[in-house]
Amino acid sequence: MNAAELHQDAIVIDGLICAKWNRELFEDMSKGGLTAANCTVSFWENFQNTVNNVVEMNQLIEASSDLLIKVHTTADIHRAKQEGKTGVMMGFQNANAYEDQIGYVQVFKDLGVGIVQMCYNTQNLVGTGCYERDGGLSGFGREIVAEMNRVGVLCDLSHVGAKTSEEVILESKKRVAYSHCLPTGLKDHPRNKSDAELKFIADHGGFVGVTMFAPFLKNGIDSTIEDYVEAIEYIYNIVGEDSIGIGTDFTQGQDQNFFEYLTHDKGYARRLTRFGKIINPEGIRTVGEFPNLTEALLRRGFSESQVRKIMGENWITLLKDVWGA
Amino acid sequence: MNAAELHQDAIVIDGLICAKWNRELFEDMSKGGLTAANCTVSFWENFQNTVNNVVEMNQLIEASSDLLIKVHTTADIHRAKQEGKTGVMMGFQNANAYEDQIGYVQVFKDLGVGIVQMCYNTQNLVGTGCYERDGGLSGFGREIVAEMNRVGVLCDLSHVGAKTSEEVILESKKRVAYSHCLPTGLKDHPRNKSDAELKFIADHGGFVGVTMFAPFLKNGIDSTIEDYVEAIEYIYNIVGEDSIGIGTDFTQGQDQNFFEYLTHDKGYARRLTRFGKIINPEGIRTVGEFPNLTEALLRRGFSESQVRKIMGENWITLLKDVWGA
Repeated sequence: MNAAELHQDAIVIDGLICAKWNRELFEDMSKGGLTAANCTVSFWENFQNTVNNVVEMNQLIEASSDLLIKVHTTADIHRAKQEGKTGVMMGFQNANAYEDQIGYVQVFKDLGVGIVQMCYNTQNLVGTGCYERDGGLSGFGREIVAEMNRVGVLCDLSHVGAKTSEEVILESKKRVAYSHCLPTGLKDHPRNKSDAELKFIADHGGFVGVTMFAPFLKNGIDSTIEDYVEAIEYIYNIVGEDSIGIGTDFTQGQDQNFFEYLTHDKGYARRLTRFGKIINPEGIRTVGEFPNLTEALLRRGFSESQVRKIMGENWITLLKDVWGA
Repeated sequence: MNAAELHQDAIVIDGLICAKWNRELFEDMSKGGLTAANCTVSFWENFQNTVNNVVEMNQLIEASSDLLIKVHTTADIHRAKQEGKTGVMMGFQNANAYEDQIGYVQVFKDLGVGIVQMCYNTQNLVGTGCYERDGGLSGFGREIVAEMNRVGVLCDLSHVGAKTSEEVILESKKRVAYSHCLPTGLKDHPRNKSDAELKFIADHGGFVGVTMFAPFLKNGIDSTIEDYVEAIEYIYNIVGEDSIGIGTDFTQGQDQNFFEYLTHDKGYARRLTRFGKIINPEGIRTVGEFPNLTEALLRRGFSESQVRKIMGENWITLLKDVWGA
């Protein structure tokens, strides 16, 4: 089976996309052969504005039902594969949308939100993000983790601070994930994870999705798909072949206002960071170029079985474990 | 001037009441000779529910305008004294009502909220309360402190954790307060403040209001007004005669549901503490008995001038400093 055939045959899951949601993007997801993607529907938004985002996503899925399927369970992902469509998994990058209501975990799960990052960059009611001093998981946060475990929502720790992350890993009765991160070992950055952190989550049954967000890669915006594969291999060597996957962090079609929103606390308050210019690695600049990643992994020397795991099978196993279906 | 005459002549300010707001209570405030009181209008409530509480309080003040004046400035407190009425200062016990909007500080100030406790018992977006591990003031919290300084809102630290309290004291450009607390030196309790903490706030220009909440007093529900005066004297000896005042924490007329609401995180989640039976110290069981406090302070040996400061003048000075008017 050559690279193109393998890509077409494999289950391909992107563990993190926060692109501009529109028909053009969905067509590119189809071109890229995506079986399913974790699509962000909340960053700084509160409960009600997040529900509005879910409504908007529902309408987009409905309007592009020739290309998309809404995902509630892993069975929906398998169905997407069978029908040649892309499954939309809705996810949060911030538990802020739960506000102070533990019951909202179930509410959003019923609406299709099965992956939730505990904190986004700064402190919320649950814990603290990676761009400020981190006092760890709060008492309320422990209750939220327990409820996410009960309901079946994946705890995502990508933008979460080191202390809160460690405590969620220890607190959660179900597997947790860094859905999209890069290793400090290749570039020192507050958003990247140290070898010890990567080993710690893997040792506790967790999972690591590897991102290609250029500012956090060793070669920045001059990176190519080879740099991305190098980072995948780096993490692979720490966490092993069953605990790794893809989480690109594609922001395709987003404008400068979007990045200003992301890089300010609450979307408008103090500035937390500056990304500078953002260009995805050459060879995987767009979602439609996803097949190049399968090819590059094979070229790097990964076996067909390993590539299948990295490209999506490990994600499915993780989600089945956490969601229960 | 005897005790009764002094009480009638003095400015009497209660730095914290969270009673059941009704005509009966307002009549008792009048009987007690209260010139003004910091009346809690938000514990766990979010922005909108807090606005609703403000609306309700506005209506109550309007309906009892023969007894009450709404306070925006210290001039309003002096006017209340002249007219023989009680000034209602609206206050929060939790910055949660600000949600994630720095601009809500000004909004609520315009509505009459000039005293805001940074955290209530647990972690919020600003910092952490005294009933859980405290990671300190968040970045957003620093922005909220700066805005409260700018707008003229007193930072209250009574239920705030030790680390967050220390950092607010250092961060604030204006005087801050423990509006209602007791000393650890007389009873060890998470809500009480150590000698070092009391000295620290006073050394930094801050203020301490002394509460009489029985579960935190040495003799618990068997306490008398003498135990309360002992606590006042204890704190007086640490902070000095210009930085001390009264903050009773009267909960007159509240029922068991109210205390259940207070003692659970977010008003409904995990239990944080149990107060057990609550009976105010003998001699000051009701707001109407407030004159007994002036008498007990004189009996303890405080001079008329010192009693005037403790009973209200220090509060006025503090509020003028912070509010600017």
